[in-house]
Amino acid sequence: MIKQVAVVGGTHGNEFTGIYLLKKWEAEPKVITRPSFNTETLFANPQAFSQNKRYVEHDLNRCFDQRHLEDDSLTSIEQVRAKEINALLGPKGQPRIDFIIDLHTTTSNMGPTLLITQKGAFYNQLAAYISMEMPEVIISCDEDHKANEDHHFLSSISKNSVMVEVGPVPQSVIRHDVFEASEVMTHHILDFIELYNQDAVPALPETTDAYRFIKSISLPVNDDGSRNGMIHKDLQDKDFTEIKPGQPLFLTFDGEVVTYEGEKSVYGSFINEAAYYDNNLAMSLLEKITLKTY
Amino acid sequence: MIKQVAVVGGTHGNEFTGIYLLKKWEAEPKVITRPSFNTETLFANPQAFSQNKRYVEHDLNRCFDQRHLEDDSLTSIEQVRAKEINALLGPKGQPRIDFIIDLHTTTSNMGPTLLITQKGAFYNQLAAYISMEMPEVIISCDEDHKANEDHHFLSSISKNSVMVEVGPVPQSVIRHDVFEASEVMTHHILDFIELYNQDAVPALPETTDAYRFIKSISLPVNDDGSRNGMIHKDLQDKDFTEIKPGQPLFLTFDGEVVTYEGEKSVYGSFINEAAYYDNNLAMSLLEKITLKTY
Repeated sequence: MIKQVAVVGGTHGNEFTGIYLLKKWEAEPKVITRPSFNTETLFANPQAFSQNKRYVEHDLNRCFDQRHLEDDSLTSIEQVRAKEINALLGPKGQPRIDFIIDLHTTTSNMGPTLLITQKGAFYNQLAAYISMEMPEVIISCDEDHKANEDHHFLSSISKNSVMVEVGPVPQSVIRHDVFEASEVMTHHILDFIELYNQDAVPALPETTDAYRFIKSISLPVNDDGSRNGMIHKDLQDKDFTEIKPGQPLFLTFDGEVVTYEGEKSVYGSFINEAAYYDNNLAMSLLEKITLKTY
Repeated sequence: MIKQVAVVGGTHGNEFTGIYLLKKWEAEPKVITRPSFNTETLFANPQAFSQNKRYVEHDLNRCFDQRHLEDDSLTSIEQVRAKEINALLGPKGQPRIDFIIDLHTTTSNMGPTLLITQKGAFYNQLAAYISMEMPEVIISCDEDHKANEDHHFLSSISKNSVMVEVGPVPQSVIRHDVFEASEVMTHHILDFIELYNQDAVPALPETTDAYRFIKSISLPVNDDGSRNGMIHKDLQDKDFTEIKPGQPLFLTFDGEVVTYEGEKSVYGSFINEAAYYDNNLAMSLLEKITLKTY
């Protein structure tokens, strides 16, 4: 039974959509509550927002593994904020909040995507329900192979959680279409939790198409480690479409086309995501999977 | 006769396209020189780039009016950098550089746009030439009604200049298509200068379709001045298309549609440009014009 839900926005300070959705919901809280549970909101990183940056010192969404939360010597703005949020919603391990919905956006052409980081019947049914109610949503899985306490996402504070990830939208911009898709998807997730709580989940499709994270790949670099290329235009905006062996991935600034050299087809996500440039990452590679609902 | 050209990138530190184009050209300088003139490159705001921001303290592209350049009490990072750049390329009034091409990008769906800030036969012919060679380029004029010394753009250091403005691309991202369009447009501008210098400009179309800046308009705000709305989805990505009286411009977060209340149709540019949020601007409004080549 899920009794306490938290909807979180602004975990990244320059992802405006969640931040303004929170303002909207805070003005009319009843639209995000349901009969069987309470919902609260949390603006996770207002300091980063006020500086119009993803984060001030550390990416807040990498600060929530148990070891970091317990280490009093970690005192950056985000490390301190993570401890505050853990006190507000957690503590991790014995959390007050049963379910976190963390709202994110991406500069990549991922459309409305539901990011699932855990396995289980609840998630397979949620994926089937969301796909049925909002067929344009992509289900993208990166299920935790490590213990939840070692997980660094904000959403790992609660035992169950999802991330809503919608794009494309530039950093520090609100797009009406992305705003609306994030809003509608969140409502469907809340509706599903209500149905689940009430033991009233309707008949769902037997299977759901989804993608599963394999690995991230990097942009080309020079011998000195400096960036030497960009996503090839044939791949730009082609999130969740097939990448075949031999297909162009990158164009270097000196004009060389770098192709995909894997043995079998994969799919990309977070293709040319602005925030990935910090670590010179180009995209995530995924495999296509089928989730069985029952 | 134009003898010295400067191609400038990174006037805004999070507009990566110009910065990486400069790296490419600096590795092979001959591609941007022509027989009748020399071309040099300038990376205008490396400090902002290293912080992954448009600017550190002040927008560098608002720091070049004569009064600011001569005021030694102005000591922010960009105010100091403006004086350095003025010494390198100028000094304004008697500049060493005859022509500046300043490379910019926008998060708006403006496609490849040539921004012209001066009137004259040279510019009308340049507009006609670029439109002939690269028909997808939009010509957008905001001709200076004030003396050049009062103009605050970096490009106002030289007597003649243009800005290359290409989108959509998120801040802090390189898109291959935007990179390529910026590169090709710059080459055409350099080719035109060469033809002009050699008195060899070919026969050009008699007229060129263009747009002229009228005014900027703001996003909706609450009584306390805080932002209360976003660009309506029907207008998003519709730069340089007609905005008719009565058409939706904005949606407020409480659900009200705000329409365009002008008496005659206009056209938008910089629609939902991320950098405009600092001043809560929504877009520029333009009128359609025809430039006569001769």
